[in-house]
Order: sequence, then structure tokens, then C-alpha cells
Amino acid sequence: METGKRPFRPIWLDTDSGAVTVIDQRSLPHELATLTLDSVDRVVYAIQEMVVRGAPLIGITAAWGVVVAVETLPEGAADPLDRLRRRCERIRAARPTAVNLRWAVDRVWSAVTRHDDPERWREAARGAAHDITEAEAECCRRIGENGLPLIEEARRRKPGETVHVLTHCNAGWLATIEHGTATAPIYLAHDRGIRVHVWVDETRPLNQGARLTAWELARHGVPHTVITDNAGGHLMQQGLVDLVIVGTDRTTYTGDVANKIGTYLKALAARDNGVPFHVALPSSTFDWSIADGVRNIPVEERDPDEVRFVQGISDDRIATVLVPPRESPAGNFAFDVTPARLVTGFITERGRCGASPEEIRRLFPDMADTRASASPGNS
Amino acid sequence: METGKRPFRPIWLDTDSGAVTVIDQRSLPHELATLTLDSVDRVVYAIQEMVVRGAPLIGITAAWGVVVAVETLPEGAADPLDRLRRRCERIRAARPTAVNLRWAVDRVWSAVTRHDDPERWREAARGAAHDITEAEAECCRRIGENGLPLIEEARRRKPGETVHVLTHCNAGWLATIEHGTATAPIYLAHDRGIRVHVWVDETRPLNQGARLTAWELARHGVPHTVITDNAGGHLMQQGLVDLVIVGTDRTTYTGDVANKIGTYLKALAARDNGVPFHVALPSSTFDWSIADGVRNIPVEERDPDEVRFVQGISDDRIATVLVPPRESPAGNFAFDVTPARLVTGFITERGRCGASPEEIRRLFPDMADTRASASPGNS
Repeated sequence: METGKRPFRPIWLDTDSGAVTVIDQRSLPHELATLTLDSVDRVVYAIQEMVVRGAPLIGITAAWGVVVAVETLPEGAADPLDRLRRRCERIRAARPTAVNLRWAVDRVWSAVTRHDDPERWREAARGAAHDITEAEAECCRRIGENGLPLIEEARRRKPGETVHVLTHCNAGWLATIEHGTATAPIYLAHDRGIRVHVWVDETRPLNQGARLTAWELARHGVPHTVITDNAGGHLMQQGLVDLVIVGTDRTTYTGDVANKIGTYLKALAARDNGVPFHVALPSSTFDWSIADGVRNIPVEERDPDEVRFVQGISDDRIATVLVPPRESPAGNFAFDVTPARLVTGFITERGRCGASPEEIRRLFPDMADTRASASPGNS
Repeated sequence: METGKRPFRPIWLDTDSGAVTVIDQRSLPHELATLTLDSVDRVVYAIQEMVVRGAPLIGITAAWGVVVAVETLPEGAADPLDRLRRRCERIRAARPTAVNLRWAVDRVWSAVTRHDDPERWREAARGAAHDITEAEAECCRRIGENGLPLIEEARRRKPGETVHVLTHCNAGWLATIEHGTATAPIYLAHDRGIRVHVWVDETRPLNQGARLTAWELARHGVPHTVITDNAGGHLMQQGLVDLVIVGTDRTTYTGDVANKIGTYLKALAARDNGVPFHVALPSSTFDWSIADGVRNIPVEERDPDEVRFVQGISDDRIATVLVPPRESPAGNFAFDVTPARLVTGFITERGRCGASPEEIRRLFPDMADTRASASPGNS
């Protein structure tokens, strides 16, 4: 993805050191910093503290985390399999909501443990992590192609006018590896000359919309406007939104969508105003084991200080301000679940489908019949 | 209202100087500053720049603004009535959404222009402004009493447990003169020993919830938790909200409610989860001339920098940080309109009623049949 200088990904193998390196997304858009993941502690820290975030990128980082776990095993240690299992469990438990995290760890774990000889683990882990990374990039490219017709349809409904897409949080290339999920159809439409404008929900508390999505769109030259999370309902009511596209951290096989807190409110407003509400995701984000997302997807509660303090730039330096009174407690619910009944459809690497178990199964018959296979927890 | 030291109002006549003085709400909760309104320019500035805010307080400030307009008329100037009319028009146009602003200016204008002799204007203006102020305080006291049964009912549904109320923005005593509108039943319930806890929407962009409502509740000792505007839907879905009470800047005689941007999203979530959604207002907030709020209530668009920059405290000093990339534009829609169909009921000084023209007219037959009387614009 073009960031102004050169193609960039949010995670890569440093060609000099061979170390796994990530963009530290906490300091964007005002500073472009990186972090080297040279220990399992660093990997867990990067995921927990949201140095990296976004379900697909969490998955990819976790996959490379298993590579780091293998590569940093002490030579000749006793019971290396058990040691690796515990390391994988730590990565797997770093955040509770994104299903890609467990999915990716389990895939690399399976590839590694196919070999009895620890000498072969490193290559197996690198191979699996590389495959996951490239497969996710290709998924996102296809999500763009499969989502593009939605924007083209919106343009046909109002010839000559700009198509207005609303998105929540960041489901861009910073949340994946390239293209993004929700942004993939937007980038493709823009690149093909369709006039598209994006309403960017700022996405409190961590402002991934205002900080990351706006930054991505600005770099790519896509017209956009940052709005408060409160504004989307009004915009839809006034006919200023043609469609909503969001990402997801976990979607049940029945079509319930866990995504950044506030997504549910936009889905309600879309339904109330007849605005199509689409969810873009690679199939790795489906959870084939949970039927009732509202009851059974664990919603992470994070540090209340993420709500109380806001980070930005002041006098050209990154600074943080406390907004409420010091004595007022805050709550920080990180995700919510949008019931399938409010979702117009899914945009996946295989095509689009409606938000029902039947339609999802029709598109993914091979996956719908599986359950999570080997994992470090149950192998 | 008790603020820790002494009873306090957000606007008062300074006993020494005789000047109209207000709390500068922009620096709360971290600093308690005041501003003296000694010219019409200052009055307009205070309303436009949100030194004061909240529909009832905007009305009261406008009423005292007419007093200031009268008292600062140059002695012996030609055509003082025309001069005063132009001053009143400026105050009347300071902000477009709150109906109380026009209502209050028109009432004081009428009281003044009953007298041909400009010598008598000052006393007439002061009397009318005083009457408006005290009437609004009494309205809010009654709103508390009329809303209390809703909290008592919620408590009866879950004996021994805390009643959770969600509110948006600040409809507290800082937005009125005493008690507040949405907060009046909450303060009364708390004072009468009912265990009540308030979910405080932070209310971007200007964070009146996190800054002002949290400050009020903390001062009064009411348990509360600041949440992002995104969180309310999730909380309702999980059964953590017993009722919603909000204020309003203008409510049509048909029951459509203009209030701080984001209110509509909470009303949608309340409806989707069977949570009662109540709107507290003094009758001065009804607009008896507009039937369709979504189409016809003007929604103010404010400076995008209110979205781009966030104010708080850093190192014990008030500071402001820029959140999105410098080059990203922002939109700042200040209000939205919640259609009557999503409103469970109104809490007014005369009692409660449903959100239909019939029920509103039944409670206010005298007002429903009037139209705006004398105003500086049409007198």
C-alpha cells in the first residue's frame, strides 16, 4: 500500500536483522514509529497494548509471534514442546475478542508440531506464518473486488454524484496487511475513478478512525471527513450516507458481528434509515463454534484510562489530556455485538452473502463443517 | 445546588457590581472560572462560544442579555426602541437550535415594550428576566418530582438492586439554573435514599457529559461512570441500563426531540432493547410551530476544530490536543432529532405525557393553541 514514500505493511521481517518488526500504531498519525518483536513478552505486549490492532493483523502478528516463540526457545532445553505450548497459550490469551488470534496461533502450532524434530520447527513456523500473511493479503484484495459492486450500485442510483460511505474504527491496511477489509472496496473504487467520500467515525476511546483511517485515506488521496461517533445517525437520517462498511473482530456462523464498540449503534441507524450495512471480513474471522454472539462472544473490558485520557499532538509533541474530573470513574467496553438481523450482508474473499447461517454455510461449506482443529490448548 | 462549598447557580447578578455573571463552562471540570456579561457583544459571545450552554440556561442568559441590552443603551440616543430591537435580534440569532433562546428574548422584549417610556425599561427587563429565572428553577424542581416515580418504578422491578440511568450530554443544573432537567429526578432519588447509578455518555465533541455531568454528579455524591458515546448500545443489550433520561434543546408539539448529537442513536438502542427512553424538559422548550422535527428543526453546524481538538488537563494545566492528521477535514453537527416514535415519554413541570401531539396538547392546552406572540422580529 502506498503511504507516500514506499509500499508499506504494518508488519514485516526486517531484512537486516531478520527480526519481526511492526508499526507502533499508538503514535500514528503524528509519528511513524516501529517496534521489534524479539521475545514472546514483546509479542504479547504488542497485542495487548494495541501496538498492533485489528483482527486480521492481530492474527498475523500472533502467527509471527509463534515464530518468535520457536526462535527464542533456549537451545537444548528440556521438553521444548511443552515450553512452546505454554508460550503459544500466552499469545493466544493476549486479547479475548478477536477470533483470528487463536485461529492463527493454532495454524502455526499445527504446522510446527507436525515435526517431531525441533530442528525443523523454525522453518515450519516461518512457512506457516508467511502463508497466513500472504493469504490474508490476497483475501483483502479479493474483498475489494467483491465489495466494489456495492459502491458501483450506489453510484448508479445517483449518477454524477459522490458516493458517501460511512465506516467505524479502522478496518484498513493498518488493521490487516494490505488493502484492509472495509477499506478495500473504497480504495479500489477510488483507484478506478469512482468519486467516493468516506465519513470517518473517530471511534472513541482510542480514536482509530480519526487517527488511523483518516491517515490511511489522506495518504491515498481519498476524500474523507472525520466525524464524532455521535454523528452517523443524523447523517443517515439526512440522506448523507449511501452505505456503511465496517470490519469485524469475530463473526458467528449465524451472522452476529462483534466489532469495535459503537458498531451496533450505526447498524441500528442504518436499519432505521434504509441504508445498507455491510461487514467486510476474511473467512479467518468467522467463529464456527458460537451461535449466539450477543450472549457468547466475550467482550473485552480495557483500562478505564483509555476513556479518561485522550492522546493527540500539542506544540508538535505527542501529549495526553485528562478530560473528566479526576475522581470520576470510567468504563471501557471495547466491543459490541451487532445481531445478524441488522446486517445487510458480508463481503468475503469468496464473494458476498447475506447474514444468515444458511447463506454463510453456502459460501463456506468446507469451513462451516469444521470445528477448531488442533490447538495448543487441546492437542 | 450544593457544589461542595455553597449553593451555586450558573448565572447570577453580582451583588457588588450589579453585573450579570456566569460560570465559564468551557474550563470545567478542571477550573472554575467566571465571565461578566457587561455588553451585548459579551452576551452573544457567551452563548455562541458555549461559555453557557443547555437550552434552559441559554434562555435565561438571553433574558438577562436583554437586560444588559437595555442597561447599556446610550442615554438620550435617537430611536432607542429600534436600537434595542436590533440588539435583541443579535441575541436571538446567536444559536439556531435551542428554542428557549427566542422564547426568552421575546418574553423580555414584550415586558419592556409594554412601556413607552424608556425610563421604565430597565425595571421591566429585570423583572421579566428574574421571573423567567425563578420560573425555570421551579420547573426543574417539579420535573424532579414528576420524574421520580420512573426511578421508583425501576427500583420496584429489581428490589435491593441499584437503578442504572443513562444520560447523554449535560442536562444538569449547569444547563438550567437549579436541579437540571434530566438530572432532577436523579438528584431527588439519590437524596431520598434510592440507590441510583448514572452511565454518563462523554458526549463528543465537547464532552459535556464527561466534563460537566460527571462534575455535577461527583459534587453531589451520586455514583456514576463515564463511558464513551459508543458504549450505550452494548450496555442496554446486556441489561445494564434501566432507563434513559435526556434533555432537549427543542421539542416539536408532535414530540420530535432535538438534542445533542448522538441522542437519536441512544433512542434507537433503547427501542431495540425495550429500555424506557424519557425526555425531561420545561415547557419553554416546546416549539408549538413545527410539526416535523427531522425536516424542519435547524441543526447547527459548528467549527470543525471542536471535533479535531480535545481539551483536558495535562500537568495540572488546561491543554488541547489535535487528534486526527492535520490535513484531514472534520464535520461538526451539533444536534440530531429523535423522532417521537422512539420516545417513551416527556417529563415536564406539569407532569408526564406520551410523545404524541394529542398527549402533549392535553397537558399544555393553553400553550398548544398559541403561536409565538410579540417578538422583536415581528412586533
